[in-house]
Amino acid sequence: MAKNRLDRRSFLGASAGTALLCTIGGETFRVSNADDLKRADAKAASLSRPRQASQELTGFPQPEPAPGGQVREYWIQARSRWWDILPNKRDDWHDVPIRGKSTYRAFVYQEMTAGFAAPKGPPVIPGPTLKCEVGDLLVVHFRNADRELEQAVTMHPHGVHYNPEYDGAYMGAYTRTGGFVQPGEEFTYRWEARPDSVGVWPYHDHGPNHTLNTMRGLFGAIIVYPKGGKIPDLERVLFLHALTPPVTGLKTARQCINGRAFAGNTPTIQAKVGQDVALHVIGMDDAFHDFHLHGHRWLDAAGTYVDTPTVGPNETITARFTEDNPGRWLYHCHVFSHQDGGMAGWYVVDR
Amino acid sequence: MAKNRLDRRSFLGASAGTALLCTIGGETFRVSNADDLKRADAKAASLSRPRQASQELTGFPQPEPAPGGQVREYWIQARSRWWDILPNKRDDWHDVPIRGKSTYRAFVYQEMTAGFAAPKGPPVIPGPTLKCEVGDLLVVHFRNADRELEQAVTMHPHGVHYNPEYDGAYMGAYTRTGGFVQPGEEFTYRWEARPDSVGVWPYHDHGPNHTLNTMRGLFGAIIVYPKGGKIPDLERVLFLHALTPPVTGLKTARQCINGRAFAGNTPTIQAKVGQDVALHVIGMDDAFHDFHLHGHRWLDAAGTYVDTPTVGPNETITARFTEDNPGRWLYHCHVFSHQDGGMAGWYVVDR
Amino acid sequence: MAKNRLDRRSFLGASAGTALLCTIGGETFRVSNADDLKRADAKAASLSRPRQASQELTGFPQPEPAPGGQVREYWIQARSRWWDILPNKRDDWHDVPIRGKSTYRAFVYQEMTAGFAAPKGPPVIPGPTLKCEVGDLLVVHFRNADRELEQAVTMHPHGVHYNPEYDGAYMGAYTRTGGFVQPGEEFTYRWEARPDSVGVWPYHDHGPNHTLNTMRGLFGAIIVYPKGGKIPDLERVLFLHALTPPVTGLKTARQCINGRAFAGNTPTIQAKVGQDVALHVIGMDDAFHDFHLHGHRWLDAAGTYVDTPTVGPNETITARFTEDNPGRWLYHCHVFSHQDGGMAGWYVVDR
Repeated sequence: MAKNRLDRRSFLGASAGTALLCTIGGETFRVSNADDLKRADAKAASLSRPRQASQELTGFPQPEPAPGGQVREYWIQARSRWWDILPNKRDDWHDVPIRGKSTYRAFVYQEMTAGFAAPKGPPVIPGPTLKCEVGDLLVVHFRNADRELEQAVTMHPHGVHYNPEYDGAYMGAYTRTGGFVQPGEEFTYRWEARPDSVGVWPYHDHGPNHTLNTMRGLFGAIIVYPKGGKIPDLERVLFLHALTPPVTGLKTARQCINGRAFAGNTPTIQAKVGQDVALHVIGMDDAFHDFHLHGHRWLDAAGTYVDTPTVGPNETITARFTEDNPGRWLYHCHVFSHQDGGMAGWYVVDR
Repeated sequence: MAKNRLDRRSFLGASAGTALLCTIGGETFRVSNADDLKRADAKAASLSRPRQASQELTGFPQPEPAPGGQVREYWIQARSRWWDILPNKRDDWHDVPIRGKSTYRAFVYQEMTAGFAAPKGPPVIPGPTLKCEVGDLLVVHFRNADRELEQAVTMHPHGVHYNPEYDGAYMGAYTRTGGFVQPGEEFTYRWEARPDSVGVWPYHDHGPNHTLNTMRGLFGAIIVYPKGGKIPDLERVLFLHALTPPVTGLKTARQCINGRAFAGNTPTIQAKVGQDVALHVIGMDDAFHDFHLHGHRWLDAAGTYVDTPTVGPNETITARFTEDNPGRWLYHCHVFSHQDGGMAGWYVVDR
Repeated sequence: MAKNRLDRRSFLGASAGTALLCTIGGETFRVSNADDLKRADAKAASLSRPRQASQELTGFPQPEPAPGGQVREYWIQARSRWWDILPNKRDDWHDVPIRGKSTYRAFVYQEMTAGFAAPKGPPVIPGPTLKCEVGDLLVVHFRNADRELEQAVTMHPHGVHYNPEYDGAYMGAYTRTGGFVQPGEEFTYRWEARPDSVGVWPYHDHGPNHTLNTMRGLFGAIIVYPKGGKIPDLERVLFLHALTPPVTGLKTARQCINGRAFAGNTPTIQAKVGQDVALHVIGMDDAFHDFHLHGHRWLDAAGTYVDTPTVGPNETITARFTEDNPGRWLYHCHVFSHQDGGMAGWYVVDR
């Protein structure tokens, strides 16, 4: 049968990610191809630390754990690496090969052992999940270990409590040290898990080139458990996000879950009947999504049974239920074009 | 005055439905006109039943009603038909005629009498609303009665409980019989209304060409009442969905409610003061919507009074209230371009 | 370094506001430049009051305050004016100047003293915030004081209770007097704050050219407090909305908060530790947004701690918390392209 081949231009027109609009160092960039990306990166690399790092308000008390809380210490470095969106070269749902280049230069957070002595594992998308309980203090030693993109990056957390020193956001003349961590530099963030921090939250780059670098993969999750709260038997964080041609230089936009597209590449989640399961779904691009899991429903926070809730950029929804339905199930974004672009995976339940 | 005529190209650019991205049998199609649609349909028609229909997990117990529950039996067939989006050829809100072709080949579910003996009514958008109570078993005899589009289709339900045999989803090598019902074939789905099924849910095609076929009209609703729960005096399901040129072959994208665009074509809902009213609104396209009803507010599940809640693809929101406000009211999606493209209707309350 | 200059065509392609689709007097307009806008306005100006203003249902009792409630009287006029989106010509976040024209003809609501004797203040975006308690009656004397755009406009409120006379919506042959207020005319709306009106709601134009006129700035907020409810120490309403080239005639789409783009132009909110703070965020364009405030979280209505909730067109979310975190914080929409297009501001907390 006749192939409906997609040339670059027409596909870009069809994809959600036609172009990215970014503000870097106050200049607006419209990034729609590899050359634009190079120009945006050059601008980001040219920025030097704002001279008058903010002294508006100083003398913040040093954050400490609450009584009975612990210090949870992490060593995390940011680095770029080549990343394959389609390692299996197949869409396992539709049982077909997928051809074409699928590797791009990603920017990722990598967990290290104490003192940055050695990697704890390979650098992947998403970055390490930081876990703590209410009352704990997250102490995150962060190093910008990238020597390729030459840009200041940061870690900006959601959900936890922090004073302005640990916001991890570039703010022009008001930038503090933790909001501009240049290649080779280190900074230690101190984030408190307060009672209103209970939940699952994203963290991500918020440096001067945050839009591009976050979309490249500089994101991860923080889980704050209630003090003594029950930890689910099976807990997974799923980031929904597009990897688009402006960011990847590839021909095709891919609708991803945790940096991968199409079932078999995206996480295959293995569960067992009787388990207390929690799937935390976080939007991590410019689109709104909704998360559907076949064969299951769960109570949302408002007390309604749902199986396809909406989730926006950097918002989290949690599907928590006791597993009772053995079999192989699809999970996917229910925006049809996202689902068809790869935002789907397997959830397999054993008896 | 000078007309601002819309040629096809410029209108497509303006409409939400520029192009549809679909994956059919593992091939990605960008559907933006009638020829693309023909190619996509040809691909869907060429698929044969996956040879190794999944035996991963078998021996599921036959679903039965819970003690005290009933079997609710439906006979439903899928077929294509010509469907008029604008039967009145008018926009009754702005009191003007609307010119131009408005008929396309829709794909719809049609309710039949027992044993498929005869139609219970004309085939319409949406399909029949399936109703049951917690504890009941929905037994849905499904027949693919279409001879025009030559494609396998299914019924995939949200909200109800089912084992993998009754998921109604095409899954490549893992497909079960109910996930690939070819023209002329029948399949009986058995879906349980469990306590966590209470609510209003969509069902839709999830066969190999689900995106196009769902957008053509292959969808309907399931209402699961609490056991002995009060049934509203007036209850309506409203699907919000675009019918776009790639799917219809028409020149103009129409923003529809239940397959119709513009007040007078969309449902005119007749209520009376004192009635317990429930309007269930379900998103059924790739867009996010929000539903506004003039002159009314209601409590959402979280306990907040709202009159314009967001609803995503295959998500449901319910506006339930005791009618106290006689008059003629507009209801519409509050995304302005959807409202102006036809996603609006009348809600008329008698004293 | 090489500039990545944006010509008009490419920027329009990149922006969310490529074109606006409006229905005016039953004719559909695709507005993508100043000439289109002129044609749409001419159509709106050519409309005369529908001859058969609806007599479908009459004899509504005159709305009065509930026992113990008060009449809250407002005088508000609609008028167009030149409005600067970037009065500071700077992005204070990224600490850089922003060049280029930033002024357009806005349409705004302006609060007047009793009897329209004098302005209470300059006409701004958004219009005045109308405040009342449950049981009160809002009596809003409205005057169309515009002589430039020659169009009928209205005030359509959300949340409050009103009979059809006070709906403020153009409805073709069913239009009532308050749904078509021509230049030079006045109309008095009577809106009741009932128990189910508690909350924060938008009002906006709903005349025959409502999409364009609302997007030009014809909107504001209503706050209905519970009877005797605690009023926050610091309360702000933030409208998230794009001002796009079709509406402004400018070269660049701006992502705005209250009619302004980029920190320093958008509201800088000053708070103090210990204050009871309420930020009410309302979507007022065709996009979905989500609202992030650095350094803070709050309980949503469902009882979940959040810091980035989704908000749709004419939907409201409220961030309410006791201030405990001194410093300078960013607030912004977390849709990256909105944030980078100007939808961000400062929230400054003193000790």
